[in-house]
Amino acid sequence: MFARLALIGIGLIGSSIVHAARRAGIVDHFAISTRRAETLAEAEALGLGDSYHLDAAAAVENADLVIICAPVLAYQAIIERIAPALMPGAILSDAGSVKAHVVEVIRPHLPEGVHFVPGHPIAGTEHSGPSAGFATLFDRRWCILTPEPNADPAAVKKLSAFWRALGSHVEIMEPDHHDLVLAITSHVPHLIAYNIVGTVADLEHDTKSEVIKFSASGFRDFTRIAASDPVMWRDVFLTNRDAVLEMLGRFTEDLSVLQRAVRSGDGKKLEEMFTRTRTIRRSIIDAGQETAAADFGRPHGKPDGAG
Amino acid sequence: MFARLALIGIGLIGSSIVHAARRAGIVDHFAISTRRAETLAEAEALGLGDSYHLDAAAAVENADLVIICAPVLAYQAIIERIAPALMPGAILSDAGSVKAHVVEVIRPHLPEGVHFVPGHPIAGTEHSGPSAGFATLFDRRWCILTPEPNADPAAVKKLSAFWRALGSHVEIMEPDHHDLVLAITSHVPHLIAYNIVGTVADLEHDTKSEVIKFSASGFRDFTRIAASDPVMWRDVFLTNRDAVLEMLGRFTEDLSVLQRAVRSGDGKKLEEMFTRTRTIRRSIIDAGQETAAADFGRPHGKPDGAG
Repeated sequence: MFARLALIGIGLIGSSIVHAARRAGIVDHFAISTRRAETLAEAEALGLGDSYHLDAAAAVENADLVIICAPVLAYQAIIERIAPALMPGAILSDAGSVKAHVVEVIRPHLPEGVHFVPGHPIAGTEHSGPSAGFATLFDRRWCILTPEPNADPAAVKKLSAFWRALGSHVEIMEPDHHDLVLAITSHVPHLIAYNIVGTVADLEHDTKSEVIKFSASGFRDFTRIAASDPVMWRDVFLTNRDAVLEMLGRFTEDLSVLQRAVRSGDGKKLEEMFTRTRTIRRSIIDAGQETAAADFGRPHGKPDGAG
Repeated sequence: MFARLALIGIGLIGSSIVHAARRAGIVDHFAISTRRAETLAEAEALGLGDSYHLDAAAAVENADLVIICAPVLAYQAIIERIAPALMPGAILSDAGSVKAHVVEVIRPHLPEGVHFVPGHPIAGTEHSGPSAGFATLFDRRWCILTPEPNADPAAVKKLSAFWRALGSHVEIMEPDHHDLVLAITSHVPHLIAYNIVGTVADLEHDTKSEVIKFSASGFRDFTRIAASDPVMWRDVFLTNRDAVLEMLGRFTEDLSVLQRAVRSGDGKKLEEMFTRTRTIRRSIIDAGQETAAADFGRPHGKPDGAG
């Protein structure tokens, strides 16, 4: 499908693309580039690529597909560096969690004849780095593409086929709409998880030890997404501010209502609220986006990290 | 260890106690009682007990251990009914998520010679009902006992041994302290999870479908604990109000700070915040309270609910 895929950034997403594309047998040559020499050496030690480049421009030379898999605020420097080296007819895409900002940054630098099709695979784990990737990460998950109205249909079609070959379902969306939907499905949940874990981190030492000890009562679920890559998430909140603040506003309004129900002892309201939320989880399981197994299928009674 | 264990309530916790105690071979006779005839019939169809009683008083007759496994606001009616039937020398315990309120309700009704040792196993899943239980639920999880200062040490020791035989670690704590620690590890996380799932439930229909579709980006983690038993959780918030409001206050203060950092584009503060929360998760994994496997060990790429 592609003769040379250049990956700019080789963390969880970049390395998972390698594994999934190798499984599918749709790329001849993987050119891997990342800014830090240690990360590049780690990728090489793992045997992820066919060539390794500290210079992103060298990686994209002759590449018919380039995917930026780096934190969003790194895009400016990346596009300035690679734009002159991009091959006419190449497809340029990315895996960033925000899309309107990405379009704004990339568009002014885009060379004639290069097809820009931004993308966002809705998949991940709390682990990061070149060793975190695995071939099944994108299976049955969505990948959203946000091409501009004048994008080349053949390029969009080819990139869609690429993500389908990686195991994903593909959805086409406008960048602004993507950012609003992701604000509530992803960005605000991460902010809230980071926040409550932060509240615990600020507790006095003794109470904090107890929270860790008794975390199985609910808290530990929040710590998973609060363990995600900090730089990636910093960039999400810096570049999708308006949508995040809009959805966060709705969340805090609703929380005030719930807080008042607790304060006034309004059992009827609490029970009603706690009942209707069950159907949302059922819908997510029915949509194939979650396991029905109790506790996410977490191991019970096994020793530490037995997974 | 016990000749007759009476379980008042046979949901997730009650049925898991049966499975775990059978595995350990420490109870001769399981007497099961619950208010609703359908639930009792379900427990009987599952073969959970040795005798079944719609009348809780009949279940506790000659029982040397009685554990109330019902929503906390049902305790008043239960203790009024069973108090006259409790055997002198019996241990009366429970599995409720709040403890100070439980002590207040039970103490005035406690017959002479009955040993009251409140308990709270820190274990659970989002599933409820007699069929939700399993033998390994308590393995390597904590069970907190909150005996009063004048409690019989032999009774506390015997109940501790019981929970250890079920696979748990046992901790002794004061009721008020238990309620404060659980407010932040369990009650506030549940309230927040219910709240964000409620925010999504209020979105217009089209956006809601998209949230379900793209829930794998973070939101779906919250839906698990927001699928827990509504009546049990209603009772938690009605009976642990002060501690919940105190911890919720800290959470919302912290959220205002984080919201301001997003609004003002303070990347340094965001990154710092997102970095320190990682160590909390590491501590929880090191404490054996969580798996180190990516995504809780959730299955990737498997069909719906393959678990």
